[in-house]
Amino acid sequence: MSNTIGKLFKLTTFGESHGTAIGGIIDGCPAGLALDFKAIQAELDRRKPGQSAIVTQRKEPDTVEFLSGIFEGKTTGTSIGFIIKNTNQKSKDYSDIKDTFRPSHADFTYTKKYGIRDYRGGGRSSARETANWIVAGAIAKQFLNDMKINAYTSSVGNIYLEKPYQDLDLNLIESNAVRCPDDDYATKMIAKIKEVKKQGDTIGGIITCVIHNIPIGLGEPIFDKLHARLAHAMLSINAVKGFEYGSGFSGTELQGSKHNDSFIPNGTTKTNLSGGIQGGITNGMDIYFKVAFKPVATLIQKYQTIDIRGKAIEVQGKGRHDPCVVPRAVPIVEALAAMVMADFKLLHATKTQQ
Amino acid sequence: MSNTIGKLFKLTTFGESHGTAIGGIIDGCPAGLALDFKAIQAELDRRKPGQSAIVTQRKEPDTVEFLSGIFEGKTTGTSIGFIIKNTNQKSKDYSDIKDTFRPSHADFTYTKKYGIRDYRGGGRSSARETANWIVAGAIAKQFLNDMKINAYTSSVGNIYLEKPYQDLDLNLIESNAVRCPDDDYATKMIAKIKEVKKQGDTIGGIITCVIHNIPIGLGEPIFDKLHARLAHAMLSINAVKGFEYGSGFSGTELQGSKHNDSFIPNGTTKTNLSGGIQGGITNGMDIYFKVAFKPVATLIQKYQTIDIRGKAIEVQGKGRHDPCVVPRAVPIVEALAAMVMADFKLLHATKTQQ
Amino acid sequence: MSNTIGKLFKLTTFGESHGTAIGGIIDGCPAGLALDFKAIQAELDRRKPGQSAIVTQRKEPDTVEFLSGIFEGKTTGTSIGFIIKNTNQKSKDYSDIKDTFRPSHADFTYTKKYGIRDYRGGGRSSARETANWIVAGAIAKQFLNDMKINAYTSSVGNIYLEKPYQDLDLNLIESNAVRCPDDDYATKMIAKIKEVKKQGDTIGGIITCVIHNIPIGLGEPIFDKLHARLAHAMLSINAVKGFEYGSGFSGTELQGSKHNDSFIPNGTTKTNLSGGIQGGITNGMDIYFKVAFKPVATLIQKYQTIDIRGKAIEVQGKGRHDPCVVPRAVPIVEALAAMVMADFKLLHATKTQQ
Amino acid sequence: MSNTIGKLFKLTTFGESHGTAIGGIIDGCPAGLALDFKAIQAELDRRKPGQSAIVTQRKEPDTVEFLSGIFEGKTTGTSIGFIIKNTNQKSKDYSDIKDTFRPSHADFTYTKKYGIRDYRGGGRSSARETANWIVAGAIAKQFLNDMKINAYTSSVGNIYLEKPYQDLDLNLIESNAVRCPDDDYATKMIAKIKEVKKQGDTIGGIITCVIHNIPIGLGEPIFDKLHARLAHAMLSINAVKGFEYGSGFSGTELQGSKHNDSFIPNGTTKTNLSGGIQGGITNGMDIYFKVAFKPVATLIQKYQTIDIRGKAIEVQGKGRHDPCVVPRAVPIVEALAAMVMADFKLLHATKTQQ
Repeated sequence: MSNTIGKLFKLTTFGESHGTAIGGIIDGCPAGLALDFKAIQAELDRRKPGQSAIVTQRKEPDTVEFLSGIFEGKTTGTSIGFIIKNTNQKSKDYSDIKDTFRPSHADFTYTKKYGIRDYRGGGRSSARETANWIVAGAIAKQFLNDMKINAYTSSVGNIYLEKPYQDLDLNLIESNAVRCPDDDYATKMIAKIKEVKKQGDTIGGIITCVIHNIPIGLGEPIFDKLHARLAHAMLSINAVKGFEYGSGFSGTELQGSKHNDSFIPNGTTKTNLSGGIQGGITNGMDIYFKVAFKPVATLIQKYQTIDIRGKAIEVQGKGRHDPCVVPRAVPIVEALAAMVMADFKLLHATKTQQ
Repeated sequence: MSNTIGKLFKLTTFGESHGTAIGGIIDGCPAGLALDFKAIQAELDRRKPGQSAIVTQRKEPDTVEFLSGIFEGKTTGTSIGFIIKNTNQKSKDYSDIKDTFRPSHADFTYTKKYGIRDYRGGGRSSARETANWIVAGAIAKQFLNDMKINAYTSSVGNIYLEKPYQDLDLNLIESNAVRCPDDDYATKMIAKIKEVKKQGDTIGGIITCVIHNIPIGLGEPIFDKLHARLAHAMLSINAVKGFEYGSGFSGTELQGSKHNDSFIPNGTTKTNLSGGIQGGITNGMDIYFKVAFKPVATLIQKYQTIDIRGKAIEVQGKGRHDPCVVPRAVPIVEALAAMVMADFKLLHATKTQQ
Repeated sequence: MSNTIGKLFKLTTFGESHGTAIGGIIDGCPAGLALDFKAIQAELDRRKPGQSAIVTQRKEPDTVEFLSGIFEGKTTGTSIGFIIKNTNQKSKDYSDIKDTFRPSHADFTYTKKYGIRDYRGGGRSSARETANWIVAGAIAKQFLNDMKINAYTSSVGNIYLEKPYQDLDLNLIESNAVRCPDDDYATKMIAKIKEVKKQGDTIGGIITCVIHNIPIGLGEPIFDKLHARLAHAMLSINAVKGFEYGSGFSGTELQGSKHNDSFIPNGTTKTNLSGGIQGGITNGMDIYFKVAFKPVATLIQKYQTIDIRGKAIEVQGKGRHDPCVVPRAVPIVEALAAMVMADFKLLHATKTQQ
Repeated sequence: MSNTIGKLFKLTTFGESHGTAIGGIIDGCPAGLALDFKAIQAELDRRKPGQSAIVTQRKEPDTVEFLSGIFEGKTTGTSIGFIIKNTNQKSKDYSDIKDTFRPSHADFTYTKKYGIRDYRGGGRSSARETANWIVAGAIAKQFLNDMKINAYTSSVGNIYLEKPYQDLDLNLIESNAVRCPDDDYATKMIAKIKEVKKQGDTIGGIITCVIHNIPIGLGEPIFDKLHARLAHAMLSINAVKGFEYGSGFSGTELQGSKHNDSFIPNGTTKTNLSGGIQGGITNGMDIYFKVAFKPVATLIQKYQTIDIRGKAIEVQGKGRHDPCVVPRAVPIVEALAAMVMADFKLLHATKTQQ
């Protein structure tokens, strides 16, 4: 139930960070799609650990193996099974973490909910799961064809890229390690991340995502509003605390006469505070939204906490962790956005049938 | 598909603002719940038009009629059908709106998507639909029993109630028309709404919602994270542009050492920047979240737009509309939160079976 | 959950036989379908009580009222709400049935499952619910357009119409009260039903259903096989004990060399023991299947049973009941078949998208 | 969508017979279940090829590898991923089958539906998929605990085991190759299968399944009737043409006075023509049902058919195929029945919550 996303373009996943493999099943991808496997692997590489100095230094190749649903390079319309082997699960001593509830981790809630917890590397709550999403998202992107989805880092800590996306060259996103399409801000953000890393600390940030070339009419009334499904998807990412689209929270300060997007005779609008969606349905303008990430909970510092018996203890944080998840989360945001858009593209195909 | 919310505690709805009636079917409500019908009607009254000087002056009693699923005052475990008759659909002249695409309304997108549109009063995109949610939410609240859900207006335009919910007396929420539990701020907010109303304009705002007395363990890994489902529900409300929980967007500025919620030996945490949820699962602390509402699109002013043939036209906005949806949206936020919590309460019952 | 059928063309229902009304919500019906309301009512009339001497003599007009989703005679793509008022729920004395578990009824299981039971007229387990299905099925038929669905009575008790459907004139189905398209057999069946009625007894029977003009490719691998979904739908009808399609149970006696359907170069097959479905997907040949109905449990006789305290009691059955459900079930079988086919027609539209 | 079965205890699958591996994801299995892995493998062994002289002589060990969701031998409540490697996919020449539509296979329908077909070994339509179901069913059996599910061969061709299940010793089911718990009949059935095999032909048959020790109250009204979901599951098995439960098709001949199951004061019934289910809900009596299997379509004979261009051709059937699927389908029927029962056990847990 809870391991599936989508209604027609569906992904169901499994896997813990320290088992043999993680993986998933994509159901509903139409037949006849000639897959670009290099493009899929390239997306995985954008997410993988060890890619730069400001992310975790774990080494994992994250190679996807497709097991079904593809024949002679094309999708067959049947379910696409895949696995990504875990190559980094060294036989490590978990005795320090086994009986400990780390602050702001899922240790406590999983243990209380299930009465049992795979404590190795966070178990099912590990963000390693997001590698599965990248695979499905990369296929969704290929299915979406003309639609272009670009996410980028728009803040790290209190360093905010103060430019609207229209003023940015989104081709520059991959030109630096933090994935910010403005070099000056990127430099500041990278410095900030290195600074907190040195402290054994972590920092949050915000990702902005923009979708171009959107057909009119995607999204459904009431409980399948496009932006509500995007919100659900984004809030499914580890560490995400907020979502806004179009004018978002700041739009609440405006009066309607300023906020309304006037039509131009060709059916487009002069402004786009609506963020490309009216009544849950795309109007053909760009979709743009922001996703807020809290700072990573794992610190390389001493901290106080409790063990599973409720005893106060002191723990020394260690290991190889991201000082800031935002750079690696950029392709994850894109992948989930792609899956949501693919789902609505299929759903829309059922509305015009007769 | 798109007219249903929930997986176990489910609501499916129908209805346009100007048809005979709106209504819904609640499926999955456990048997044997003795319903307090007055409490259900009281929730509808909190949402109904005409309740104060700062909301739309339409008069609709919004009386719910239950048609099934209840026997001798108790739920029977079978589906609960209900309708709310539309009493305000006077035979009005719609010729002005029939062929017009109003800015930032769903007129354009519905017409393009479906090729047909019930233009009377917004059709299916009307917020009248939310009366259905109130009914289901009121029943969910009764099922939730000890859990207490309180929403309130925390900003109107740029007037922000600058106090955390812990410093407020939530019993005061209903003491004023704007549903802000602080009298000074309420006065300012009401004045603001009256001011924009006088201009024939509208204004946005933010609702904060707090849930107390939450069992540990509600929520599911990966795609049924409690906060992701809350986000989906809240973004389903008309005019909502954003959602954040716990530390939200502002939490992105913090370092992990400040953001982490340290445990106390009894299993609670000293701070609660997590907003009561870790890894998608409740930890027993309060849940709190914010919902951003844009200003209402309907203005009582002249405005420029286009008609369905793409011709530029000038229209004089008229009618009885809310200058600010936030006061009436407070019970809607609570209703959806209650439905989500009820759904997870039921889902959790399946996790401990053996 | 359990009150919904379909994945894209969905019906959710509510209602007890003795409440104010029953009804439902159709979600997913495409926009722009010009509805023939007389045809919908005509289907309800085929199911309604009192239509002939061999069915229950209750009088209920079964008039459907549409509340939403239709504008100027056409579907709008939004959810279609409807109700059918119960006009026959006279304030009757239920004291005899209130505390009694009638044999082979759902009294016992509902009471044990839910701890509460709406005993009036069978409550939610009443076959009155099937009137809701007729409404949705009638709309599905109009959406299916060229596909033709015909069901008929092929046996009553041990009177079997020993002719394949190809040898029958299906236009004669409505020419007699038992809905058997062969006059000689119809006469015998009617006599049989009158005979058991006179005894205060009941009798079972079988309905055959044939679907013509089927596009190739409807149905999905593995758990959405077309025949599996048909089976699910048919077994949802009250009193149904079995389903078979194509060669069915008797096909188990054949050897493969006899059972295989050889292809003709145009892609059709010489024989059709497969019943129009291969691997769960339509091959363009006719679909045909049989549905077995047990005898109605309500007898107008004295019988022994127990009360809710487990005490043995004798009860005198009374009331106006069908001596054989099969004639009135013919349109119900068609309605469910139409909903299943409509669902797969929509689902198929998502397979060829790119 | 179509590769998932169940609502709470869910299995999603992938895999073609000639890819690297098949596999699945079990979602919703409660936490803390200590798995008996030998019992799981034993079920796979009951289904595997090459187990006796009357089944296909292919050799495949069918070893399941669990990849997630299990920790220290117990389920963790998270999704259970597993794969079964295909060891028998020798690089074979498929040129004979590649362009051929074999009669009564899914070659034609898959090609027409998807425009592409993995022709190796039947692709997704291969019954190899059922090995996945065995894994999930074996886990479901362990979750069901006291409920006992036993299936057996009750007919092969026209050889019918003419005894009710109550007169059989179900412990004898595994005592012979055909899985018939009566030695005399088993001998005749085996002889029959050997005879058709010698002809290069195949034969159908019927499996009876009995479930003992069933809690009262499993199943839901209207569209989640227990028997309807069983029918859906059974008709999902390759080659199945029919399903009946309780009195089934033959019950249609009876009058109600004979068919009704009278209550005994303890709440059980004297007879059980209802098959343990009333109104879709278990009444605590045994559930029993029959499943009809057509003869396998693959013959080791010459036959006429067409190729994908519609040209008539003659083909010589070859390979290692089952002359009768029924013996190997016995554990498959049990596995699906177990999954359905597990799903309803979980669903029932949500009905009594407050």
